[in-house]
Amino acid sequence: MIPLKFKLTIAYDGAAYHGWQSRTDGSGVQNQVEAALAKLFSSAPRIESSSRTDSGVHAWGMVAHFEVPRGEFKMPPGKLALAINACLPDDVRVRSAMRVPGNFHARFDAVGKQYRYQIWNGPVMNPLMRTQAWHVARKLDLAAMCEAAELLVGRHDFRSFTSNRGVVLEDAVRTLTRCEIRGQGAKVTFIIEGEGFLYKMCRCIVGTLVQVGEGKFRAEEIKNMLARGDRRISGMNAPAHGLVLWKVFYRGM
Amino acid sequence: MIPLKFKLTIAYDGAAYHGWQSRTDGSGVQNQVEAALAKLFSSAPRIESSSRTDSGVHAWGMVAHFEVPRGEFKMPPGKLALAINACLPDDVRVRSAMRVPGNFHARFDAVGKQYRYQIWNGPVMNPLMRTQAWHVARKLDLAAMCEAAELLVGRHDFRSFTSNRGVVLEDAVRTLTRCEIRGQGAKVTFIIEGEGFLYKMCRCIVGTLVQVGEGKFRAEEIKNMLARGDRRISGMNAPAHGLVLWKVFYRGM
Repeated sequence: MIPLKFKLTIAYDGAAYHGWQSRTDGSGVQNQVEAALAKLFSSAPRIESSSRTDSGVHAWGMVAHFEVPRGEFKMPPGKLALAINACLPDDVRVRSAMRVPGNFHARFDAVGKQYRYQIWNGPVMNPLMRTQAWHVARKLDLAAMCEAAELLVGRHDFRSFTSNRGVVLEDAVRTLTRCEIRGQGAKVTFIIEGEGFLYKMCRCIVGTLVQVGEGKFRAEEIKNMLARGDRRISGMNAPAHGLVLWKVFYRGM
Repeated sequence: MIPLKFKLTIAYDGAAYHGWQSRTDGSGVQNQVEAALAKLFSSAPRIESSSRTDSGVHAWGMVAHFEVPRGEFKMPPGKLALAINACLPDDVRVRSAMRVPGNFHARFDAVGKQYRYQIWNGPVMNPLMRTQAWHVARKLDLAAMCEAAELLVGRHDFRSFTSNRGVVLEDAVRTLTRCEIRGQGAKVTFIIEGEGFLYKMCRCIVGTLVQVGEGKFRAEEIKNMLARGDRRISGMNAPAHGLVLWKVFYRGM
């Protein structure tokens, strides 16, 4: 019998977790979601996600899918999100759960992702934002940052903007479709969208753009960073707690 | 010798505290600020604040003053906020510290206050706002709420909108100068401004307006609630964690 497949959109506060991915000590967000599903379905479904997020990174729109044998699914489908949420801690919420065709895959079908990053740019940190924004005390030059951000948009080899995990990257060419910076008082928000991202690429982009804003790099040096393909000449990684996986895009959904 | 007087503007995340006011167990926000001052000045100055806030309520612009004997004050005055912040936990921050005349009083000189209250109005709570917004699942009728809010603005006897602490109020007449509701997606923000507030008045106003938005009261019933002066006929108190003391107003400052 063909199992039922569901797509979940999940939001979480990453502060208390060692990233999205399941860990043997149970400290991944995925552990929480799978534990909730195990309470609802005796087959204890495993989930496949669109992405991983690092320790401390948040999500508003993480996507994952799972399957349940048809005979095990006894609730009205509209109640699934509610049922899972009842089994989750309050820092993890299923925003929606919907039936999808059997060939849907949260990772392979994703055609793009949007991340957002928040900064508090003022001499004193706002304590109400301290767990979800990076405190940058020095006044940033937003115009220079926007100019630099524009240079990152497009199809480039981004190996200068990823953390080396001891592997030589064969293919580091990615397409960034959007890199926007919005200032609203002391709050600065980055909106970064692309077809795919390398490891820690968003945090390296934000860290480098902030260093442009601080005057450490000129905006046009971005061109050189892209051309040279050397992680050592780009900027710092922005800290994890300002980053949110905002949305995952699928064709026709 | 005349002591030096300073005005502090303080922001805090109230989640970990039993309100603003000093407590013998040290669990008030005021304890933290006074402990920080005691590390900097041997006279261990006590502070006087514009307001108190309840357990769990936050602040962006709490105001307090304190005095230091002139001989004890040895740092450049511009460094005072930085010095206090270095002695505070990161959920409490001094946003600014400025010299004020000897006759300044944070409470007696305040001519008005602004509070803000945040609601997440959607079927599923946003986990990234769970510590700073009240989750109201049922879709609110914002137009009805705005109509009701308008009726609260002006000079009224607000005894229907304060929590009885076993005292008979002699004077419950207060002037509300602003009661605005802004919706932005699922986020609903109340901006409430007045010359003075009764105990839990903001939370009762928000709770009642939400019940108007849910259809429990018609907007025009606000008139009756104000006229009757009976706490039992107005609405519920909104929970503490959505409320922020936003700003305290002083003449000419």
